[in-house]
Amino acid sequence: METIRIARVMQDAVLKARGRSIGFVPTMGALHEGHLSLVRTARAENDLVVVSIFVNPLQFGPSEDLQRYPRDLEGDMEKLQALEVDYLFLPEPEGMYPQGFCTFVEVQGLSERLCGAFRPGHFRGVATVVLKLFEIVQPTRAYFGQKDYQQSLIVRRMVEDLNLPLQVVVCPTVREPDGLAMSSRNLYLSPQERRAAPILYKALLKGQEALLRGQRQPHRIRELMHQVLRSEPLVGEVQYASAYDPYTLEEPPVLRGSALLAVAAFIGRTRLIDNLLIDGLK
Amino acid sequence: METIRIARVMQDAVLKARGRSIGFVPTMGALHEGHLSLVRTARAENDLVVVSIFVNPLQFGPSEDLQRYPRDLEGDMEKLQALEVDYLFLPEPEGMYPQGFCTFVEVQGLSERLCGAFRPGHFRGVATVVLKLFEIVQPTRAYFGQKDYQQSLIVRRMVEDLNLPLQVVVCPTVREPDGLAMSSRNLYLSPQERRAAPILYKALLKGQEALLRGQRQPHRIRELMHQVLRSEPLVGEVQYASAYDPYTLEEPPVLRGSALLAVAAFIGRTRLIDNLLIDGLK
Repeated sequence: METIRIARVMQDAVLKARGRSIGFVPTMGALHEGHLSLVRTARAENDLVVVSIFVNPLQFGPSEDLQRYPRDLEGDMEKLQALEVDYLFLPEPEGMYPQGFCTFVEVQGLSERLCGAFRPGHFRGVATVVLKLFEIVQPTRAYFGQKDYQQSLIVRRMVEDLNLPLQVVVCPTVREPDGLAMSSRNLYLSPQERRAAPILYKALLKGQEALLRGQRQPHRIRELMHQVLRSEPLVGEVQYASAYDPYTLEEPPVLRGSALLAVAAFIGRTRLIDNLLIDGLK
Repeated sequence: METIRIARVMQDAVLKARGRSIGFVPTMGALHEGHLSLVRTARAENDLVVVSIFVNPLQFGPSEDLQRYPRDLEGDMEKLQALEVDYLFLPEPEGMYPQGFCTFVEVQGLSERLCGAFRPGHFRGVATVVLKLFEIVQPTRAYFGQKDYQQSLIVRRMVEDLNLPLQVVVCPTVREPDGLAMSSRNLYLSPQERRAAPILYKALLKGQEALLRGQRQPHRIRELMHQVLRSEPLVGEVQYASAYDPYTLEEPPVLRGSALLAVAAFIGRTRLIDNLLIDGLK
């Protein structure tokens, strides 16, 4: 595995690979089994695999956890080496956003809903850095986790709207045995909070159960999911928890065809998100 | 010359050309000698030449001239054929902006100055369509005219900020014998207005003369340029006319190193722009 820190050097490396397919997994590091499942899929489907680790300051709000975001470069590199990654792209913030930087990519509408309503500017930061990384790595396929469903939807929309010549692949959420979706932010949880955290998944399962029982009114599902969340004393603010149209991320009057069950809530000081996509609703 | 109307078909065509350099000239058609000089330069510097003709609705304001913008596809095709262009990309608005389109590229700061102050959203529309065209055509080099100086500055900034793997080439403004900068919009001018139109260039020359005489205060140059413009009765609103920092597009207290003399003014109902870049100021 070759580690590259400079955008231009990365571009030259992939330029030399012309004709070979490139699988790309953009990450913020602190790699867990969710990331590694993306890397394995990328490895199976492409000639070359590039992973980036970049804790992107542009997608953090001023009161968010940029400074304390978990970092474990040594552990990450060992894991990627073992999966036979070809290139690790490891840029510095100053290289990605030099003085005078002033260009931003915005996916309007989708970026303002769900997490976007609570994290203004977050998805603008995501879209901008993902486009930059795509330009640097020139992937054939880029891999994202379904755990960040809204992010993957926004990236897909950007790729389509801007005619980017690549394929977005969204891979299933990887869960701990007790159902908690894997996330680098799970490292923030105290042992007690960690035991409480699967409540998000339980709320999703309650929503799924209602859907499968025939419930089609989002506000009824929302009530059920909030009930489950309120049953756990360590749950703080619930930012959202309901059933949404998976394309618009809005609560429709009546669910049809498919539904996104999604939740964002604090366990102690840690904000966690999770979702389930339910297809084939009659 | 092959004419292509579908983005995906265009992408496939350039994909096949891998390894060969691609020169790209994006235009809105009604081609004049200014455009053709870009095409000739692209022809001389690249293996393949792609020209696009697309009157981009996203860069026109609601009260602007989108509907009456000059169109001459047959004449344009003859000219491009004669210059041995390989591909003409001729998309439809519905193909470029299908239903649900919601992704925009914004170069902040630069886009709000000069023309941007009078045409809100214009440069967002320009940046967005130029990025889309770059993704579709995958050029090695893209050619722009200095007549649209602010546009070329914004495109350069976007290319740098987003790590686009291509070179932006800015070619000199081509002028009529009386100094009028070539522009498709010159076709709007009545014979009488056409005779008055070189007043923009005369105002620039007056500013240049002052600079070369040692004048370094923008507000003095602004006064001189406005004096020249006011001497012509057919000049209507003068949107701006002064000396600017060529990198920030702002009037500095004192000019140093280089200056952009730039003007936007109406001749009758027609809005015209022009500029001169003066280097090597002591």
